[in-house]
Amino acid sequence: MQLTPPRTLHEIASIINAEYTGDPETTVSGINEIHRVEKGDITFVDHPKYYRKALSSKATTIIINKKMAAQNGKALIFSEDPFSDFVSLIKKFRPFKEASSMISPDANIGEGTLLQPGVFIGNNVNIGENCLIHSNVTIYDNSVIGDNVIIHSGAVIGADAFYFKRRPRSYDKLESCGNVHIADNVEIGANTTIDKGVSGTTTIGKGTKLDNLIQIGHDTIIGKNCLFAAQVGVAGCVNIGDDVILWGQVGVQKDLTIGSGAVVLGQSGIAKSLEGNKTYFGSPAIEALEKMKELALIKKLPSVIEKIS
Amino acid sequence: MQLTPPRTLHEIASIINAEYTGDPETTVSGINEIHRVEKGDITFVDHPKYYRKALSSKATTIIINKKMAAQNGKALIFSEDPFSDFVSLIKKFRPFKEASSMISPDANIGEGTLLQPGVFIGNNVNIGENCLIHSNVTIYDNSVIGDNVIIHSGAVIGADAFYFKRRPRSYDKLESCGNVHIADNVEIGANTTIDKGVSGTTTIGKGTKLDNLIQIGHDTIIGKNCLFAAQVGVAGCVNIGDDVILWGQVGVQKDLTIGSGAVVLGQSGIAKSLEGNKTYFGSPAIEALEKMKELALIKKLPSVIEKIS
Amino acid sequence: MQLTPPRTLHEIASIINAEYTGDPETTVSGINEIHRVEKGDITFVDHPKYYRKALSSKATTIIINKKMAAQNGKALIFSEDPFSDFVSLIKKFRPFKEASSMISPDANIGEGTLLQPGVFIGNNVNIGENCLIHSNVTIYDNSVIGDNVIIHSGAVIGADAFYFKRRPRSYDKLESCGNVHIADNVEIGANTTIDKGVSGTTTIGKGTKLDNLIQIGHDTIIGKNCLFAAQVGVAGCVNIGDDVILWGQVGVQKDLTIGSGAVVLGQSGIAKSLEGNKTYFGSPAIEALEKMKELALIKKLPSVIEKIS
Repeated sequence: MQLTPPRTLHEIASIINAEYTGDPETTVSGINEIHRVEKGDITFVDHPKYYRKALSSKATTIIINKKMAAQNGKALIFSEDPFSDFVSLIKKFRPFKEASSMISPDANIGEGTLLQPGVFIGNNVNIGENCLIHSNVTIYDNSVIGDNVIIHSGAVIGADAFYFKRRPRSYDKLESCGNVHIADNVEIGANTTIDKGVSGTTTIGKGTKLDNLIQIGHDTIIGKNCLFAAQVGVAGCVNIGDDVILWGQVGVQKDLTIGSGAVVLGQSGIAKSLEGNKTYFGSPAIEALEKMKELALIKKLPSVIEKIS
Repeated sequence: MQLTPPRTLHEIASIINAEYTGDPETTVSGINEIHRVEKGDITFVDHPKYYRKALSSKATTIIINKKMAAQNGKALIFSEDPFSDFVSLIKKFRPFKEASSMISPDANIGEGTLLQPGVFIGNNVNIGENCLIHSNVTIYDNSVIGDNVIIHSGAVIGADAFYFKRRPRSYDKLESCGNVHIADNVEIGANTTIDKGVSGTTTIGKGTKLDNLIQIGHDTIIGKNCLFAAQVGVAGCVNIGDDVILWGQVGVQKDLTIGSGAVVLGQSGIAKSLEGNKTYFGSPAIEALEKMKELALIKKLPSVIEKIS
Repeated sequence: MQLTPPRTLHEIASIINAEYTGDPETTVSGINEIHRVEKGDITFVDHPKYYRKALSSKATTIIINKKMAAQNGKALIFSEDPFSDFVSLIKKFRPFKEASSMISPDANIGEGTLLQPGVFIGNNVNIGENCLIHSNVTIYDNSVIGDNVIIHSGAVIGADAFYFKRRPRSYDKLESCGNVHIADNVEIGANTTIDKGVSGTTTIGKGTKLDNLIQIGHDTIIGKNCLFAAQVGVAGCVNIGDDVILWGQVGVQKDLTIGSGAVVLGQSGIAKSLEGNKTYFGSPAIEALEKMKELALIKKLPSVIEKIS
């Protein structure tokens, strides 16, 4: 998320009551977790395994749980619990705002867009022109929706990322401060859920069509003109190209990339990144032709074994 | 869908501004896509591969993208883009009607039927007697629901068919003008979605029970006293007999038939039609006994191979 | 469910107009089906296969379809159709009560708890402090929710158990008189559904986090600090320990136990009870390491067979 107006390093460090190295006037213009970090952003790191990644990222300021000299020109804020301090900043700069009505008075709704009864629209939502939002749809705060978008009943746009940090006796929630962006000409099926980004934007590309009861995880980016059949589940931080077709009940694990033009047959489970323009099947999925051969071989096994014996 | 009142061939051709062959006074009494076409209907065909099917169908009038002489007594309307012209007719004769309230004033609701708060009921909906419709259910326009039906919260009855035509740089939506019919004594679980027919009727037969989070695609017809467990997904245009049991998370591909009395075990994927009165398992599913043998064989493979070697 | 106030055997037998053996003044303090039965309860049995189980259960009173002498000190009520008579008792003592408004006036809602617009809260619901219930959530009658609970939009808490008795030409519904209990610090994802117990309590343990579009069946008990990813489906009467992780689209069959600390990889199907502190994969699931070996072996089969030949 953008910080508007930007703050200084000194102001940020004061909020979480922490020491720091770097120019106190360093500008902090955004809050982002490591996957979506940009120049000017503050991020956090709390495990030595990821120190190098954080210190070589685009972030300008890093909350870190080890005292060290400034590196790579980064400003560093020292914290015993960077996760909790990061969450504190999110809570301060994007506190949950109770809704005052079913449709927030600050919603920006384009001409020709129709909201059926029972639609909930949170704070600071932008919806383009000529959309049709069916009854009992929920659109959380800060969502951005393009023109000519159809959203069917019961769909939930922008619920929190499913992102927790394990503690010895419980989980801590990483408060999501990101949002969802649905581009022009998208159609979203009934009871489909699209989570907001942790700090960035979950994106559904132009012309993509999602069927019913689909799950799209936080920070996932889906390209143009994709077609996902019912009950597909895509985890968080997945990058999907254009013209990708996922048939019913396909599952996609987090942090993967699926190339443009890939087709995945029904009930497949995607456990690693896939090249585009190929067809896949199975759980875990491999190229469909290979899978078909495998299935045929298994069918012939009894006679093969008998012959060999 | 029925055209009420019926129109003439000449009127229809004028609406889409197209030439035609056949008696200008030919009656057009319904609009249906090719799977559900009846005598008196207008349908469309836009690929030579399907010309013969369309020309030998029950349709009386066909929108077609090739000039030809009248055949089989069919009236023909010539169009460069039959799909778009068909959609234009649907939009003209069944335009989307904005709701005026959560429960349409023209809804026809039987005695003893209880609507909990937050239920949305679209235009021209019929609900029988002694039904219980729980909170936050959505029922789209033109749905027909029998007696003694229970629908749990969040269910969505009659959302649009997931049916798109690929264009070079986008998808065109086939507007759905069909509906959903839920027969007597049916129970529909929470957050289950049942799409309307493209032009016909998606049907849930008498006494059938659907658990939560199930997807039923457009134009699918389900028989009597079926039992579907949670998260089952059935694609469009599937025909399912009576007394069929689908366990949790089963997926069924489109255009298939499942015979009466079939039982499909959990997570199976149905990729071809199934005979009734048998039990199936696997993805793709085969007879359960055969599948169990296959699984047992795979377990024994290491020792079999060792012995043979 | 508890019967408040308790009734006597004689009163209960009179309601269903049945003969009985035992002290007419025997106290009936609860109505429970056989899985959740406690001392003082009435339950039913209608198949000789389960007579012994019922007669040796903790129940004090049993509705049974065979005349016999008193056994094990149980009071017996004789019925030709124990199922129907049991349902009659539930309907009498816990009749469905129509809601008078979106939020029942008798709801007990703790300090600091926020209900967004469009939330439905049924009769006799208790919600603790500092909860956040997002828009368009449905909470059925008698649910109990702890402190610091977050429930995302479209979730449905407490819909009826999916529990039917087959009759020659239809199914009879076992009316649910149980409820749902969600402990402190739980988070429930968007459009997730949690069914009430048939007569007992479906329980989500302290600190457990459920992602979107998850199904939790009736009477299932989930421990503390579990993490279930999106589209997981858990059937009825499952017992899950603490710290269990189920990845996306996992399915769990009914009546099973999953030990604490178990991890189940995505799309797995659990068909038998699992020991804790192990990792599982596959449908049906086995230990993940074993499954990986199996998959590797299948990949090598063509070359193995060739070599042997």
